[in-house]
Amino acid sequence: MIQSAAFIGLGAMGYRMAAHLPKTFETVYVWNRNFEKAKQHAAEYGTLAVELNQAVQADVIFSCLPTSADVEALISSIEIKAGSIWIDCTSGVPDSAKKLSTLFEQQGAAFLDAPVSGQTIGAENATLTFMIGGNTTAFEQALPAIQAMGKLIQHVGDSGAGFAVKAVNNMLMAVNLCAASEGLTALKAHGVNLHAALDCINASSGKSNATETILPQRVLNRSFPLTFALPLLAKDTGIAVDLIREAKLSAPVIALTQSLVQAANGTAEPNSDFSTVAKMYESWSKITIE
Amino acid sequence: MIQSAAFIGLGAMGYRMAAHLPKTFETVYVWNRNFEKAKQHAAEYGTLAVELNQAVQADVIFSCLPTSADVEALISSIEIKAGSIWIDCTSGVPDSAKKLSTLFEQQGAAFLDAPVSGQTIGAENATLTFMIGGNTTAFEQALPAIQAMGKLIQHVGDSGAGFAVKAVNNMLMAVNLCAASEGLTALKAHGVNLHAALDCINASSGKSNATETILPQRVLNRSFPLTFALPLLAKDTGIAVDLIREAKLSAPVIALTQSLVQAANGTAEPNSDFSTVAKMYESWSKITIE
Amino acid sequence: MIQSAAFIGLGAMGYRMAAHLPKTFETVYVWNRNFEKAKQHAAEYGTLAVELNQAVQADVIFSCLPTSADVEALISSIEIKAGSIWIDCTSGVPDSAKKLSTLFEQQGAAFLDAPVSGQTIGAENATLTFMIGGNTTAFEQALPAIQAMGKLIQHVGDSGAGFAVKAVNNMLMAVNLCAASEGLTALKAHGVNLHAALDCINASSGKSNATETILPQRVLNRSFPLTFALPLLAKDTGIAVDLIREAKLSAPVIALTQSLVQAANGTAEPNSDFSTVAKMYESWSKITIE
Amino acid sequence: MIQSAAFIGLGAMGYRMAAHLPKTFETVYVWNRNFEKAKQHAAEYGTLAVELNQAVQADVIFSCLPTSADVEALISSIEIKAGSIWIDCTSGVPDSAKKLSTLFEQQGAAFLDAPVSGQTIGAENATLTFMIGGNTTAFEQALPAIQAMGKLIQHVGDSGAGFAVKAVNNMLMAVNLCAASEGLTALKAHGVNLHAALDCINASSGKSNATETILPQRVLNRSFPLTFALPLLAKDTGIAVDLIREAKLSAPVIALTQSLVQAANGTAEPNSDFSTVAKMYESWSKITIE
Repeated sequence: MIQSAAFIGLGAMGYRMAAHLPKTFETVYVWNRNFEKAKQHAAEYGTLAVELNQAVQADVIFSCLPTSADVEALISSIEIKAGSIWIDCTSGVPDSAKKLSTLFEQQGAAFLDAPVSGQTIGAENATLTFMIGGNTTAFEQALPAIQAMGKLIQHVGDSGAGFAVKAVNNMLMAVNLCAASEGLTALKAHGVNLHAALDCINASSGKSNATETILPQRVLNRSFPLTFALPLLAKDTGIAVDLIREAKLSAPVIALTQSLVQAANGTAEPNSDFSTVAKMYESWSKITIE
Repeated sequence: MIQSAAFIGLGAMGYRMAAHLPKTFETVYVWNRNFEKAKQHAAEYGTLAVELNQAVQADVIFSCLPTSADVEALISSIEIKAGSIWIDCTSGVPDSAKKLSTLFEQQGAAFLDAPVSGQTIGAENATLTFMIGGNTTAFEQALPAIQAMGKLIQHVGDSGAGFAVKAVNNMLMAVNLCAASEGLTALKAHGVNLHAALDCINASSGKSNATETILPQRVLNRSFPLTFALPLLAKDTGIAVDLIREAKLSAPVIALTQSLVQAANGTAEPNSDFSTVAKMYESWSKITIE
Repeated sequence: MIQSAAFIGLGAMGYRMAAHLPKTFETVYVWNRNFEKAKQHAAEYGTLAVELNQAVQADVIFSCLPTSADVEALISSIEIKAGSIWIDCTSGVPDSAKKLSTLFEQQGAAFLDAPVSGQTIGAENATLTFMIGGNTTAFEQALPAIQAMGKLIQHVGDSGAGFAVKAVNNMLMAVNLCAASEGLTALKAHGVNLHAALDCINASSGKSNATETILPQRVLNRSFPLTFALPLLAKDTGIAVDLIREAKLSAPVIALTQSLVQAANGTAEPNSDFSTVAKMYESWSKITIE
Repeated sequence: MIQSAAFIGLGAMGYRMAAHLPKTFETVYVWNRNFEKAKQHAAEYGTLAVELNQAVQADVIFSCLPTSADVEALISSIEIKAGSIWIDCTSGVPDSAKKLSTLFEQQGAAFLDAPVSGQTIGAENATLTFMIGGNTTAFEQALPAIQAMGKLIQHVGDSGAGFAVKAVNNMLMAVNLCAASEGLTALKAHGVNLHAALDCINASSGKSNATETILPQRVLNRSFPLTFALPLLAKDTGIAVDLIREAKLSAPVIALTQSLVQAANGTAEPNSDFSTVAKMYESWSKITIE
């Protein structure tokens, strides 16, 4: 039975996610590279800011870092506790999950790839979606801990499957965003009212999260708030095309979109939100999507 | 003031749409090439099955035909009544709308392009979405008649704008369908449970009508019900790329997707639903999306 | 039998092409919108600078203008002489050729679409390639006149076929240029010597006019000389995609390349050579192809 | 100084290549998995058919196998001789070359990636093109041995550069083939004579090896001779996109073409020549490219 939990990586997501663990566990360790953040979390939520060595002695350990390379580096510096379950919420690389899963298994422990969606608001309200790959028994054991933070929690397959679903999700978002930017540019060129057009599309078969949320809330109002950096979308779409390459599949729309996200990333200003992909189309057409 | 209405083209959509007009108008003419359909409608809903000549003497005339070419052919065979408003619900060609609009204006009448979305269920429940282009005064005069059948009714711009929005909507649907088919093929190849994956995606940023409705209800259950024929999607995506060509824009994802829909249409069996685009990807990968 | 010839449009190509006609015909009229050019040509080559009305009384009339729209406008302002053969060397639109061909036929005359390749050097040396569409009898009658300027002269099909071949040729050039730019960017990123790489490719299966001529002579040496303007390439690739749309074909590589040329054209400086397409890739990758 | 040479892998290329070595070296070992081939070569050309162990004791060792995986497996089974130079003519993977190069260096030996082009006729006539990556000193030492088989021999960069150039070359060939197939399908649909059209294109800016050689000699004459298998082209184009992914570049035309080659490979009959990519387009359009 799970007695203690830990959360490693207190970024915008992790900080809010870890806040829910004390409701379920008496002992909750937190650790962050910038350790002040951990102390602040402890003061705010009654968690315990401890050394990394101690944190990884918890029964379940959550991590939420920028990339799989960060997770691998961190894990290579610690000793894996037998019986522990590591739940990695990073938007990571499936092959890395497989490698780490084997490593944990050899130590009598388990590694689950468990990326999330729902943004900071979902982290705050414990309504995140978890897409989880890895050992089913470990998944069931860890479920109560995960439920403290999530609403929809799905075991989607073996090790790596969670990361794969997250990469494909972000890829589809990128496709829908590119296509909607293209479509709205065309409508604007023909004198159509884009707000009215989006209302119609969002009541019709062409709707997507891009037309319902991204374009109205980030592009048409010209805000482009930095909540998900364009280089991270470039990374995630890259993971999706790697999945396709490995399986020797043909996915032309995805392959093209990855190229376009890469091109947008190559020409965007630093610290650009992913929604600035729309600006690449604007530079090509001299048309503002508003 | 509008006293009489007519509905021309009693297909799966038109038959149900015309059924709502008698609630608003005392005199409702209906006409259909296969005239038995018109008589049946009259018997069922109290409309008047009349000759085309008489139908087009109504104050507002709705039409719902397969293509703009059909509408043009029909209008070239009749006399346009001064003061009448023609509301064409066909998924048509913007340039054709502009041409017809000018023609009606010369006769002291008006032509609105007013394609709909919402499928037969929306036609039945009078909850269709209307995306309308053309003269604003005519639009306002016709509004009560349109409200008899629609829920969301948007004037999106000048003549042709309605058809343009509909074409872009269907194009986005095609893009989202292609990308989702590609993404699910990749996930399947990596052993992911597609139902669980779709649940996650539909709670996340990658969701679209394709992942929420088309894939679960048509592809994963292997039903591919024929409700919207693939050649019609090929036609509509073609209208979208024509919009882009005319404005000399660059829309790579849309251009590619139109090519893919055309390829799928070239290899599909006759009378295939638009969702069989997914089968093209299956033939490439030997993977079944289920 | 052909007694007199005319040449209309004395641009960089036309000026040099018309210079060969006096070797074959006693009477050679020339006309140009900027009439000084015509007078200069007459002084230099013994042609006759005359009014447009007189020029079009020749037995064969060559034209070489920027677009089919220019040719149509010019022809609509003149009277077509029965028995004459009009040979249009513009890189034009197939549908326009069909329309003009019918018009000339109605006047007992003939219109051949006869675009050329070979650049100014080919015009100067009378070694141009002519790809010709239209009536076979007219083609055979006009052959001696064409042979005065061309080396390879091919009748490729009915009216419009010549323009179609020229559009496809320029489209293939654009594809090969884009792909080669992409490939060389990748090689550069991996530290490969591009000059050595091009030598190898040009002795191998990947070679094209882009790798043999365009990249070494325009891009790698950073000269980008303006000999064929990027907007004209955008126009020609547009004609190619229109051919594909009309025939309802699927041509994904061509459709994508047209989008990319359009994007490059949208961001290029005014008066850019077509080879600056390579600079778009450079802006995406921060890699210079040299 | 090089005293002895070896050739490993006596396939269609290797058999002919190895035949030239006895002109330059007194001692030439040959080895092949199917050893009968080696004995036959020895009988025909005066080489020595020996055990693999002995063959790899030569001063220079050539290899020509299907994939880098085959080369790695073979090398892992032998002892690397200090001072030897291994010249791998496989169409291989740049990362594999880097790995093997490091391994050989650690043993005081050298590994050059040295893929070739020129087909069996070039192998027979010793007119192959070699694109070579790796240590410059080793390259210069090995040059006399390479010159026995090649005409154009280029050192293109560090380890892996040779494989990279070969992959990009084959990728460009695939792009040019796809685009030319698309273009010719369009011309055929418009009634153009394809032989005449190819003559024009091959005298113009759109020409490539695809229009000059592949289409006339394999597609238009409906021969599709199996000389380079489609799965190998799929492999090579995959290597090219991997180069692009590693460098985080945007190469939309290449990415799309790899998808199309993969799709063609997924639907082609077994043992199809790479030129059957054209048949995929034919199946989409119901048009035969002839």
